[in-house]
Amino acid sequence: MQVKINGQMREIRAVQMKNHIVEMIDQRLLPFKIKIQQLPTWQDTVKAIKNLVTRGAGSVGVAGAFAIAQAANEITDTLVAAFEHQLEEAAQIISQARPTAGTLSAAVKFCLESATKGVTTEEKQRLIDKAAQQIQSADIHASESLGKKGSELLKPGSRVLTHCNTGPLAIQDYGSALAVIYFAHLAGNLSLVYISETRPWLQGSRLTTWELQQWEIPHQLIIDSACGYFFSKNLIDAVIVGADRIAVNGDVANKIGTYEKAVLAHVHKVPFYVAAPIFAIDINCPSGDQIAIEERPPREVRTVIGRLPTGDMGTVQVAPDHTEAANPIFDITPAKYVTGIITEQGVLTKINTKNIQKLVSKSQTSSG
Amino acid sequence: MQVKINGQMREIRAVQMKNHIVEMIDQRLLPFKIKIQQLPTWQDTVKAIKNLVTRGAGSVGVAGAFAIAQAANEITDTLVAAFEHQLEEAAQIISQARPTAGTLSAAVKFCLESATKGVTTEEKQRLIDKAAQQIQSADIHASESLGKKGSELLKPGSRVLTHCNTGPLAIQDYGSALAVIYFAHLAGNLSLVYISETRPWLQGSRLTTWELQQWEIPHQLIIDSACGYFFSKNLIDAVIVGADRIAVNGDVANKIGTYEKAVLAHVHKVPFYVAAPIFAIDINCPSGDQIAIEERPPREVRTVIGRLPTGDMGTVQVAPDHTEAANPIFDITPAKYVTGIITEQGVLTKINTKNIQKLVSKSQTSSG
Repeated sequence: MQVKINGQMREIRAVQMKNHIVEMIDQRLLPFKIKIQQLPTWQDTVKAIKNLVTRGAGSVGVAGAFAIAQAANEITDTLVAAFEHQLEEAAQIISQARPTAGTLSAAVKFCLESATKGVTTEEKQRLIDKAAQQIQSADIHASESLGKKGSELLKPGSRVLTHCNTGPLAIQDYGSALAVIYFAHLAGNLSLVYISETRPWLQGSRLTTWELQQWEIPHQLIIDSACGYFFSKNLIDAVIVGADRIAVNGDVANKIGTYEKAVLAHVHKVPFYVAAPIFAIDINCPSGDQIAIEERPPREVRTVIGRLPTGDMGTVQVAPDHTEAANPIFDITPAKYVTGIITEQGVLTKINTKNIQKLVSKSQTSSG
Repeated sequence: MQVKINGQMREIRAVQMKNHIVEMIDQRLLPFKIKIQQLPTWQDTVKAIKNLVTRGAGSVGVAGAFAIAQAANEITDTLVAAFEHQLEEAAQIISQARPTAGTLSAAVKFCLESATKGVTTEEKQRLIDKAAQQIQSADIHASESLGKKGSELLKPGSRVLTHCNTGPLAIQDYGSALAVIYFAHLAGNLSLVYISETRPWLQGSRLTTWELQQWEIPHQLIIDSACGYFFSKNLIDAVIVGADRIAVNGDVANKIGTYEKAVLAHVHKVPFYVAAPIFAIDINCPSGDQIAIEERPPREVRTVIGRLPTGDMGTVQVAPDHTEAANPIFDITPAKYVTGIITEQGVLTKINTKNIQKLVSKSQTSSG
């Protein structure tokens, strides 16, 4: 994406690799400071993934692929057995940098499998490099494709509500839900984006606002619980969100707060779309009931991260010490509330297990 | 309420007056510091109201009544005409300390009217003192009465969701929605209170948690947009909220986020109760459509107030400078989503204009 850094426009990506040096936009400092981290070794990249320098399903997967490519490149042993042993060790560590990120382990696995076709260590290194670049290219292709296809759903003058962060910081080059918004904007059909702030981490306030500002797309930030008000005033024409995981029956696991918006959209007869690359569909998960909801520390509810009066990033405490808090970070939106699932293969509106299975197998054929 | 201050339990109220000195709990410092402000003159009290040292419909009304009592007491002129002139001037200033707070102007008006029955300035001073105390007593009576009556709605083991702050800090001595929760707890019928944090000001995180901690009532703080999740898991048996204003048809204006919870309760077949003293019913407002929704500065959405790492209260910025934000601070819940209105006169479940008019006139008779 085009970003103004020190007064100059630069084309940058959330995660990229040049000459086996990984570059990452430090998302922890956004939107207040744009800092590109240079990560010369695979261990540096692992540390950055662990420390949330980058985040988002796509970016974490790409970072993992680049890390394994760095690792392969750094192994000087030319004995294949020794090379493979060291690579396997690195792969384990990389996959564990974010144990619950499906795209991370999938990316590492894909790169390792690609290497098996090589005979020498040099060949394996080259194949892993290629596989890592493929993962990035696949994201870019999926993002552009689903963005363009999804954008056709929006009529001129559309006012869209989105939640959390689903833009180029999360999935290259345009995001998922935000890719749809971007291409609708290019087509001149977008009038306004409502961004819900997305407590507890405020990805809406900190990241989505920043992305829409880079793209110069009109937006308004609102608190999470104001969404109902804007529905009641008929100010929302469509909801578009991303997905952390889609079950085969079409139930959607996504950032906490998604479910509420789906219920509100349903009650107000507003279409509710889920935009995600096909990799978000979990073919082994029959329904949302099977998805365990991660709970994170109560501390995140008792505090808020942001820019302190000193200019540094830090937290304020907003509740008494030791206040009990529940902090589920995802919720499940049942398929019945989803108007359409937007993927790189098109928009699925007849959502059921058979059609989703068909979609996934079609995608495997086309990419295989 | 019983509050631990410097290791000792003390019985304090959000606002009280002794020998014409007003005492207020400084709600801006809660929950991190308990400071009682001493306000010796009516101008001090006005300044405190203006600066939000106290807040909440009841507390602001009581503070206004005490301010006019202080003003009357401070006037040394014994000529009735001069006394009345100065009193009228003070009344104007007091009513304007929070121009949109209906209870404030109503309290001042009630005190002034009471004074007309007196002949001498001393008599007028005494009548105003008495009227001010009556306002406080009426709040205490209403709070206790609605709390007890409402608590009978809750079955043993109830898990209740509430929003914003509706406890003893807002209305003496038990609050409105929180009075119901308090008496249900005393009756042994309450298992857990979910408190939604209530952005942008976080009254849930800062104040309601603190009140429930004083009362030792089990609670869990959650982010605003997690409510849907807890409904979907069948963890909420009832919703109880307060009201800023109730239209005669039963539509309810209350803190932004209330409407969403009403929709969710409706969809999940969970009862949704509004608890408020009868003074919250606006007999001149036929329906929620007539209620203008106040919008506050976007800055409040871009920032969060809390305790800084330095220990002082302050704000962190959470969105880019100048990000456009919409900040409506109330929403309207249509009567069709309200299971019952809990007042000091009992619980109204057949909500319509006729029954609400009857309720208000019954209350005027009983207090008249």
